Amino acid sequence: MFNILDCTLRDGGYYTNWDFSKETVKTYFEAFNHLPVEYLEVGYRSNPMKGYLGEYFYCPVPVLQQIKSLSNKKLVIILNEKDVRAEDAEPLLKPIAGLVDMVRIAIDPKNFERAVVLAKEVKKLGFEVGFNVMYMSTWASQKEFLDNLPLAAGAADIFYMVDSFGGVYPQDVRDTIALVKSKVDIPLGFHGHNNMELGLINTLTAIEEGCAMVDATITGMGRGAGNLKTELLLTVLNAQGKLDFDFNALSRVVDVFTDLQKYYEWGTNLPYMVSGANSLPQKNVMEWVSKRYYSFNSIIRALNNTSKGQQDN
Amino acid sequence: MFNILDCTLRDGGYYTNWDFSKETVKTYFEAFNHLPVEYLEVGYRSNPMKGYLGEYFYCPVPVLQQIKSLSNKKLVIILNEKDVRAEDAEPLLKPIAGLVDMVRIAIDPKNFERAVVLAKEVKKLGFEVGFNVMYMSTWASQKEFLDNLPLAAGAADIFYMVDSFGGVYPQDVRDTIALVKSKVDIPLGFHGHNNMELGLINTLTAIEEGCAMVDATITGMGRGAGNLKTELLLTVLNAQGKLDFDFNALSRVVDVFTDLQKYYEWGTNLPYMVSGANSLPQKNVMEWVSKRYYSFNSIIRALNNTSKGQQDN
Repeated sequence: MFNILDCTLRDGGYYTNWDFSKETVKTYFEAFNHLPVEYLEVGYRSNPMKGYLGEYFYCPVPVLQQIKSLSNKKLVIILNEKDVRAEDAEPLLKPIAGLVDMVRIAIDPKNFERAVVLAKEVKKLGFEVGFNVMYMSTWASQKEFLDNLPLAAGAADIFYMVDSFGGVYPQDVRDTIALVKSKVDIPLGFHGHNNMELGLINTLTAIEEGCAMVDATITGMGRGAGNLKTELLLTVLNAQGKLDFDFNALSRVVDVFTDLQKYYEWGTNLPYMVSGANSLPQKNVMEWVSKRYYSFNSIIRALNNTSKGQQDN
Repeated sequence: MFNILDCTLRDGGYYTNWDFSKETVKTYFEAFNHLPVEYLEVGYRSNPMKGYLGEYFYCPVPVLQQIKSLSNKKLVIILNEKDVRAEDAEPLLKPIAGLVDMVRIAIDPKNFERAVVLAKEVKKLGFEVGFNVMYMSTWASQKEFLDNLPLAAGAADIFYMVDSFGGVYPQDVRDTIALVKSKVDIPLGFHGHNNMELGLINTLTAIEEGCAMVDATITGMGRGAGNLKTELLLTVLNAQGKLDFDFNALSRVVDVFTDLQKYYEWGTNLPYMVSGANSLPQKNVMEWVSKRYYSFNSIIRALNNTSKGQQDN
């Protein structure tokens, strides 16, 4: 069996600067009380950053207490490993012990060893620890990261493969799972992106291959192309006879975020398809195209030149 | 190798009553002159129907002549088999010989034998003939249809499996291809719908399994959840090194239909996910939900009761 984690507020907060209206939040948590989703990732915990960031970026104790009064689910927050040092763990997380069940860590494979050190400090504080390891499509070529994979076993309770570029296919999911399993014995998770509209089939494949947890967001809310849509995953699993739940509750929370989507317009589009299919950062491609720095053709030409070993002109 | 057929105007016309502005049409055909899509299905040919239907529903000769002056591609029209008798073939199609290369026929498997008779009349007039056989997810249980499949070999040049409900998975595509191949030797095609966002992976699977032709539409324009997006298919095949083309041209035609999409809002949503995942007509589910005839829960309950053999209450 597997668990589902919904990270709409954490991932979607990118668009709203991690502020959400009281009504949106109330609808979200009340709906999820009736849905077969075990974990809700509600935001980040972070040291103060430059510029304004809303309450779900910092998840202060009063916000988490408010959420706990609304929700009967396990709560999760995520840390950006690049911004959080091992000595930050206790001051950042001790105040929220008892409010949050799991702390996930977003990790660049290049910083894996350092992340393990942070993870151990987090675990000492009594949290479930999740690794969200990014850029899964690059792992096969990262020898040092692969050699260090066994370190995960003592440090994390769940090890997520994140399809950061939105460029993996089902076979890549299978191959990556096999690769990780060959190095370390640990429950696995998958976080898909929807640049090529492969979020669902990749996640179903991950489940088939024994992943213990998978991510999704309502309406796929998330940066750029966004994520697997929670409502799609739940509907499909229900039709397959695997889950039963209150569709009316699902419909209520989908409606609220559908309205937001009309305004913020997340979801895949041609620039995000190009970035996903070519394993490029989507932000770059969107910028190049929308600011008319480069036409699509010059981007593709540069990609082709790069793969043929020519200089980018 | 396989061919791609774009049927944006024919399938998308559902929203615009098969009228499109001069500018939209011009942009569409000029863009496709630069894209690796061999066939453009531009509309229907039909006897007069009740009520107003626009020029791409009837594709009169002047419209087709205009298109031929704009486009260097093979042109296709489609007939609804349920509305067209064998004796209608010559009056409907003779006037467009030389303008249109392929005539496709949308066929309910229950009417397959009758469709074969119509197809032979169409072939006599010199057209390539395509069968678009609907409800592919039901074929395994349609004994008479399966027994008659060999008739297709003399009657059609290409035999399409249409995922009418938008409910098939990649394995179903493989199974259906194997089933058809076991009965008849004929080039195969696939027309996917995107209710479960499986349009791309199903179509890639169809290509892997040797399909000779696949359908797509710009921005997936089409009734309800719509189709595989042409721009997604082309982008992915380009990234896989299989196709090269003018992305700027693709971007131009995508932009025009993206504007239309903001108005008409095709694309999957929760009612269409429910209909697709449960092999129900999407129009029904959308109606039940949006007119508040039934809540989602009562629809799902009725489905579960049906599958458990209980009466629908």
